[in-house]
Amino acid sequence: MLDQLTILAPGLLGGSVARAARARGVARRIVIWARRREAAKSIAGQPWCDAVVDSPEEAAEGASLVVVAAPVDAIVPLIRRIAPRLSAGSLVTDVGSVKGRITREAHAVLGTNAHFVGAHPMAGSERTGWESGSATLFEGRTCFVTPLPETDAGAVGAVSRFWSGLGAIVATVDPDQHDQIVAHISHLPQLAASALCSVLAGAQPAWRRYAGGGLRDTTRIAGSDPKLWRTILEENRDEVRRALRRYQDELHAFDAALARKDWDEVTARLARAKDYRDGFGA
Amino acid sequence: MLDQLTILAPGLLGGSVARAARARGVARRIVIWARRREAAKSIAGQPWCDAVVDSPEEAAEGASLVVVAAPVDAIVPLIRRIAPRLSAGSLVTDVGSVKGRITREAHAVLGTNAHFVGAHPMAGSERTGWESGSATLFEGRTCFVTPLPETDAGAVGAVSRFWSGLGAIVATVDPDQHDQIVAHISHLPQLAASALCSVLAGAQPAWRRYAGGGLRDTTRIAGSDPKLWRTILEENRDEVRRALRRYQDELHAFDAALARKDWDEVTARLARAKDYRDGFGA
Repeated sequence: MLDQLTILAPGLLGGSVARAARARGVARRIVIWARRREAAKSIAGQPWCDAVVDSPEEAAEGASLVVVAAPVDAIVPLIRRIAPRLSAGSLVTDVGSVKGRITREAHAVLGTNAHFVGAHPMAGSERTGWESGSATLFEGRTCFVTPLPETDAGAVGAVSRFWSGLGAIVATVDPDQHDQIVAHISHLPQLAASALCSVLAGAQPAWRRYAGGGLRDTTRIAGSDPKLWRTILEENRDEVRRALRRYQDELHAFDAALARKDWDEVTARLARAKDYRDGFGA
Repeated sequence: MLDQLTILAPGLLGGSVARAARARGVARRIVIWARRREAAKSIAGQPWCDAVVDSPEEAAEGASLVVVAAPVDAIVPLIRRIAPRLSAGSLVTDVGSVKGRITREAHAVLGTNAHFVGAHPMAGSERTGWESGSATLFEGRTCFVTPLPETDAGAVGAVSRFWSGLGAIVATVDPDQHDQIVAHISHLPQLAASALCSVLAGAQPAWRRYAGGGLRDTTRIAGSDPKLWRTILEENRDEVRRALRRYQDELHAFDAALARKDWDEVTARLARAKDYRDGFGA
């Protein structure tokens, strides 16, 4: 059990970390810093929060483990602020959707006093805000843990146990490989769904009322927060563009087959897609 | 109440028409013809079936209303077979996902003896087969009814009441406009989801195990039957290619904004998509 778990800037994921940690007895004491004053006030009254403090620096004092739950562009700046206040041997992890640059910079900022072990729980949602958090959000979901070769092995083990302790299934991968993976399984689907909605908005939005469950499902993630996604796409631009190029090539191949009425080719591509999708189970 | 409802070639939709018609007391007698002998045998024992017969012609005898539930390429050939056996003033409808050509040809085949009023219930699923049918499949879902200007007005009213009677919300539109609408809200999403799965299958299928609920939802319809979709894409090729072109343009615009790091443009497109998606409600 951790003596003190500190959570900085809780949104959906940070709010869920606090709830899950309390529900599963992962930490004796949970300390939270929230950027907005009104959030801080409401959080102070929650059963999964032992103290709300006024600054990230103060929150970092005495922490066994700090979870930086801020958007990707705010993670390293926060770590820079708390670095001088961290106890020797303490742990820092995050929930950022992109890991390459953040992992390298956070490691460099902390040096060998405290240990940064990046993480990315695959438990996002089109919902946002700490209020939407849930103690069961991580259960059975992948949490990437992305150490560098030089990351302290003991720290990697402890942070992995922390995320497992919240119910997640930990997958340990290199930070750059992580970014390539999520470009394909998360960022590309986001662009595909958003582009679809953008086209339909431009065609005739009223047609939406005729749609069946298929369109609803296919576009659900397009309801996600554009500002959050802007920072993710900024951070993972190159990998996202590579994945997007593959998608454009695939659509081009579909269109070319339609153009030349090559129905066997169309069917073969649909069948390959079905095989892949069937691998998820029902 | 219809005296005799005949259903030809029931799959998911035809099987659901029979169940819903029985549950809601829409027809006194339900007669079914199934192409495959083993399906015919199993259907004969169902409480929503009063008789299974050996040929479409026989099934059409004495029918007040015939639902042709076959795939789009088999609809007109079936109507051609049953035309000589239909009583004067009887009604024929279908469940085909594409309506322009089918509606015109079916109208021409039947002449003025019986009346064809095309329909398309937006209640498909990645599930298939009459066994998967449900009495509630149409409840609250759109059912397009697509008369030609020359279609008998009384027949249009009766077929519309039939679909409303099964729980659907009827939307009456011109057959060609229907094909343009579904190219956008149904066929394009299918291609977008299938192309996404096809890319991921080609990248690294094992990454699937890391995916969150977002990818699962976004790709659900890619599990649909490739052969069924082949016939739909064949039938609606030109409208689908127009919609696909818009989608490709949108993705190109996203990529161009990413390339020049125009984050305001990226955010604006994501926000337009979110606005559209939010219109569905939760």
